[in-house]
Amino acid sequence: MKTSVHAVVRMAQKAKRSSVQLSMLATSAKNDALQVMSRALLDRKAYLIAQNRKDLAAARKRNYAKALVERLTLNDKGIEEMAQCLLDTANLKDPVGEVLGVFTRPNGLVIEKVRVPFGVIGIIYESRPNVTSDCIGLCLKSGNAVILKGGKEAFYSNKAISSVLKDALKVTQIPAEAVQLVSSTDRRAVNVLLCQDQYVDLIVPRGGEDLIRFVAEHSSIPVVKHYKGICHTYVSDKADMAMARKICYNAKVQRPGVCNAMETMLVHQGIAERFLPQMIEEFKKAGVEIRGCPRTRRIIKTGIKKATEKDWSTEYLDLILSVKIVGGLQEAIEHINTYGSRHSDAIVTEDMKEGEQFLRAVDSACLYVNASTRFTDGYQFGFGAEIGISTDKLHARGPMALEELTTYKYLVHGKGQIRQ
Amino acid sequence: MKTSVHAVVRMAQKAKRSSVQLSMLATSAKNDALQVMSRALLDRKAYLIAQNRKDLAAARKRNYAKALVERLTLNDKGIEEMAQCLLDTANLKDPVGEVLGVFTRPNGLVIEKVRVPFGVIGIIYESRPNVTSDCIGLCLKSGNAVILKGGKEAFYSNKAISSVLKDALKVTQIPAEAVQLVSSTDRRAVNVLLCQDQYVDLIVPRGGEDLIRFVAEHSSIPVVKHYKGICHTYVSDKADMAMARKICYNAKVQRPGVCNAMETMLVHQGIAERFLPQMIEEFKKAGVEIRGCPRTRRIIKTGIKKATEKDWSTEYLDLILSVKIVGGLQEAIEHINTYGSRHSDAIVTEDMKEGEQFLRAVDSACLYVNASTRFTDGYQFGFGAEIGISTDKLHARGPMALEELTTYKYLVHGKGQIRQ
Repeated sequence: MKTSVHAVVRMAQKAKRSSVQLSMLATSAKNDALQVMSRALLDRKAYLIAQNRKDLAAARKRNYAKALVERLTLNDKGIEEMAQCLLDTANLKDPVGEVLGVFTRPNGLVIEKVRVPFGVIGIIYESRPNVTSDCIGLCLKSGNAVILKGGKEAFYSNKAISSVLKDALKVTQIPAEAVQLVSSTDRRAVNVLLCQDQYVDLIVPRGGEDLIRFVAEHSSIPVVKHYKGICHTYVSDKADMAMARKICYNAKVQRPGVCNAMETMLVHQGIAERFLPQMIEEFKKAGVEIRGCPRTRRIIKTGIKKATEKDWSTEYLDLILSVKIVGGLQEAIEHINTYGSRHSDAIVTEDMKEGEQFLRAVDSACLYVNASTRFTDGYQFGFGAEIGISTDKLHARGPMALEELTTYKYLVHGKGQIRQ
Repeated sequence: MKTSVHAVVRMAQKAKRSSVQLSMLATSAKNDALQVMSRALLDRKAYLIAQNRKDLAAARKRNYAKALVERLTLNDKGIEEMAQCLLDTANLKDPVGEVLGVFTRPNGLVIEKVRVPFGVIGIIYESRPNVTSDCIGLCLKSGNAVILKGGKEAFYSNKAISSVLKDALKVTQIPAEAVQLVSSTDRRAVNVLLCQDQYVDLIVPRGGEDLIRFVAEHSSIPVVKHYKGICHTYVSDKADMAMARKICYNAKVQRPGVCNAMETMLVHQGIAERFLPQMIEEFKKAGVEIRGCPRTRRIIKTGIKKATEKDWSTEYLDLILSVKIVGGLQEAIEHINTYGSRHSDAIVTEDMKEGEQFLRAVDSACLYVNASTRFTDGYQFGFGAEIGISTDKLHARGPMALEELTTYKYLVHGKGQIRQ
């Protein structure tokens, strides 16, 4: 099961070579290929499910948590969704070749700024096998070759999905070498991949914070990081109380295990006594554990824990919420900029001037006035898909989809101009 | 002269704090400040020149090369140019607040993608003192606080320029804390700066390859790298010979010490015998040392050296040129993608189809048909200024100016929407 160092280097070389050809394919050729790949997944359903069962058996033997086994499971419906995602990706607008600007200089040079693929993208991810198929689709559509390194828990599933898709590519114009899977379960394979800066242009790690830190620390290739989401909702004293309750409840309860769920609720001191009792009652009914600041605990005297300093910077990914009463907008902004993770933060207020101040002053990828932070998502934003949600500020910020898998270059058309 | 670890951390904290205020300033307030700063440089000319003399005296004592001493020298004209650059920067379009897109979702959410400053930008650079002033201007105009770390050779000059500009800020709306100079000559200060990812959003190293590699390896903050320029010109068999000679001569000779100068000339085998003798004669007259491939040396039998494998990946920054005869477009493209540095490359051809193929297939920031690579430059591209030329593909590619000193965020306006 070990992939040797040389095997990873060869994969990177093959991917690079194929990427030049891929970068020049017409949109229709890429879309045709995605359709062929989509059909192949449906045709090979039985094989995919059989291979997935091997991973599930291993997971049970290793006593994996139920939630993890669920995420690993590939059934009819899951495969149909993967196939549909490839079709959806085929229908998305091709970002490659988009002219981002044209300017003619006084000396007659015509400079075009044009969107181009990165070249080769490495994706390092954990658990869910559909990521394999989704990422292959997004990378190929954006004209990039892709090298995948999945987790050992989905070893057989990832191998099966990528081999079905690579097989399918043989009857298309996309070179099969444009898809490479590092199927080694040896972590050294990741280290080798992260050093192939000669061949690989971008690394996207998807998974837990440890994985992402490991990748960021060891990569000589640029990494777009998708760190945790410590998302806040600030309920202003100018908020519509009923709306605030609805938004906060949704942001915490609807799906607590994801990065755009709320982890800390900030409440203006002027409305805390009116707002908190009913709100916290609703949270408690939903099974949410509350960890409050001292002022919160003076209003809600029973059944809430004391929030420690660590709570303000913790991503619970669970039915736990920290609550803090603040003096006003300025304190809310400072709290978020200090403890947040630059992901998604919301204000609930009827005062649009206050809303604008919040939008401008909070340093996060996605900022909301009067809506739930749960909308931070490529599909919800209308990007059709997403490769992840970047918490970096460089290159891509927030939901990262096809456009964010491209870079640009300048094409300069002259008539013999030389520099004076 | 040592800046303690704590001093650098405090600088980063102050810069961060000021950046929030700076990010919200109106364009007019920033422009007014740049004008005040520009006047201050002119008013304090005598002081700046006196401080610069201390650096020049030290440089002579250390027996620095003449070219380096020249680059270090600050005279009346140099200070006037710095002052003018600040005025020019004031006249550039403010990128902050530009709406990059607005989309209304089916649920009524209105999502705006808006250009915002990064926050705090660290610039680590060598020798020329005007970089201090130019970078302060560009960073402040784009709404960013800036932390500067210049080289020890310009210690007094950099300190004088930044103190004059910080003084000038006191009567403006830009907080003086938005400009920080690490005046330590201790390299550990750089290491400390590179770890302040909590406060600093972006690092731009400007200088030799060693400096850039050091920064890239030690920084926990994202770095936009400005590596070397191994620029090529490919003379096709479909080239206008006279144009090709003019372009190649300009790209090599006009200013050989800069990154957009040509280092390798590729010539189609079909025209080599006609093209090379006169071309090489011209180069020799200009004092250019030629290092040729074996086929070149069969055509030009005397006075040219043998090119080694290492020559193809060497940035001479000098009157030296490597010359290779290639079989055609494909070989030229492969040579450039293998040995080039993704900076600037040109083709000379009258066949526009061939030109288009070259533009699409070469993986460099700036690609030219029938023009000199010497045009890769922020001013020449019409950006008004430049902070450098990025050889990275992530975030900024090619000339990096005001727009490239910004990132974006999504502002989402709701009416109480929650996720279903």
